[in-house]
Amino acid sequence: MNIASKPLAQRMTVIGIGLIGGSLARAARAAGLCNEIVGAGRSADHLQRAVDLGVIDRYETDLAKAVAGADLVLLAVPLGAMKAVFEGIKGHLDADAVVTDAGSAKASVVEDAVEVFGALPPNLVPGHPIAGTENSGVEASFAELFQGRRVILTPTERTDERATDVVRKLWEGAGAQVTLMDVRHHDEVLAATSHLPHVLAYTLVDTLARMGERDEIFQYAAGGFRDFTRIASSDPVMWRDICLANHDALLAIVERYQEDLDALAKAIRGSDSERILEIFTRAKQARDRYCNG
Amino acid sequence: MNIASKPLAQRMTVIGIGLIGGSLARAARAAGLCNEIVGAGRSADHLQRAVDLGVIDRYETDLAKAVAGADLVLLAVPLGAMKAVFEGIKGHLDADAVVTDAGSAKASVVEDAVEVFGALPPNLVPGHPIAGTENSGVEASFAELFQGRRVILTPTERTDERATDVVRKLWEGAGAQVTLMDVRHHDEVLAATSHLPHVLAYTLVDTLARMGERDEIFQYAAGGFRDFTRIASSDPVMWRDICLANHDALLAIVERYQEDLDALAKAIRGSDSERILEIFTRAKQARDRYCNG
Repeated sequence: MNIASKPLAQRMTVIGIGLIGGSLARAARAAGLCNEIVGAGRSADHLQRAVDLGVIDRYETDLAKAVAGADLVLLAVPLGAMKAVFEGIKGHLDADAVVTDAGSAKASVVEDAVEVFGALPPNLVPGHPIAGTENSGVEASFAELFQGRRVILTPTERTDERATDVVRKLWEGAGAQVTLMDVRHHDEVLAATSHLPHVLAYTLVDTLARMGERDEIFQYAAGGFRDFTRIASSDPVMWRDICLANHDALLAIVERYQEDLDALAKAIRGSDSERILEIFTRAKQARDRYCNG
Repeated sequence: MNIASKPLAQRMTVIGIGLIGGSLARAARAAGLCNEIVGAGRSADHLQRAVDLGVIDRYETDLAKAVAGADLVLLAVPLGAMKAVFEGIKGHLDADAVVTDAGSAKASVVEDAVEVFGALPPNLVPGHPIAGTENSGVEASFAELFQGRRVILTPTERTDERATDVVRKLWEGAGAQVTLMDVRHHDEVLAATSHLPHVLAYTLVDTLARMGERDEIFQYAAGGFRDFTRIASSDPVMWRDICLANHDALLAIVERYQEDLDALAKAIRGSDSERILEIFTRAKQARDRYCNG
């Protein structure tokens, strides 16, 4: 085997084989990024299913065994499970093993790591693939999930450059476009573009679901409603964890949103036609400019 | 020509040849529902384009001429233009002409008609096709827009049953499923399932658009954001009119929504894990149950 065809990792361990972990494993295999992929998680049945689907080569339910001998480790578990996973792998990682995660908030992951390891390990590169669907589980995973999508890595001053480079190559190998960003800034940007919309969509469906005539009401929901609320079909546990983990940035943008909604409601109440049109026009222009279709 | 093949109308006039008016004209033609389709509106250029596209047979920019001799008239104009159109056609309609509209709120249309005609004319059947896309204009119109979609008619005690029957056959001929509903109830249901989501989506995009780092922020918006905000690309004038026309029902549901959003924010602030999970789970279950995909 020559240098050019040397894979990124001899053995990659993916902890959490759901939509994200499963899709990255599939993509890594398709791109020949590692020779062996070990899956880890709590449920042997679930992991066996991932083996049967060809997503992973083998599995371990014991975290210490799962990471032993791995040169690359991805934590693709809900944010609420991150700390326990750090505790489970502490002391069992190979000296040069590069570790990354796929959590949707980054400050909380850094805090969890600092609590468990005493300081942020130089080989731990916090990361976040901005990809997903409203479906979850290994059955929903597919190798192309990250094609053309963005992945944000948030290395700190302590982070080893080689480790960041390995993680960058992993995601680029899966077809993604990698950007580096400050931890806090990542959390603010994602609170605005992802966490807030989920909170708004969950709240809308719940508001309607608790109305007396809900069976009738949902009958008259058209395509716009379906699109608008699609993200409310996302995994409730994952999103609860995100809300708790990123609560500072999220609550700040929720408050800003509430002020803007108050202002619009006031304009409607006062029949302030110009103000309403101004808001709607600015919003339409921004969306038409930044989103395609 | 035998009875079975007799069309619903000899001449149908469609006032406002945009997405809805244009699509209904196309559908009526495709289904052979009328022998002649006359388009009406303010812009001769725009109407000529509709003729060139084969959507209408001919056009009039004068409302009196447009409705003369028509046995079926559809008003597919923004709610804010409805009263002026009633004024324009008053005294020029054939005695038996059936009139309907496609406005997204119904109480305001009834009020406008009562103001102009002194009382709700028996041959006027208020209606609302629950269909549309975020695109507007005759170029976006297509004959299949109403296939399998719901149309709500809100006849009152004064409304002639024959007129209601003609309008029902018109929409059924275009492939829609027709339901009758009380005016006020229609406005409440639509405020919840359509008007509120539009208000929320417009507000979200505007909140983000007014942030300093908006160019960067929108870069990291993923598929979920695109789906969630698609309705914010809708026509601002049409939606301003809907907010003004249906402000009572809309403000009531906005207020309810704000209370629910406050409660969720409070749960996040207090790290009330169970409460957040309860809300998200109930929302996901409702959406999975009532919406497909």
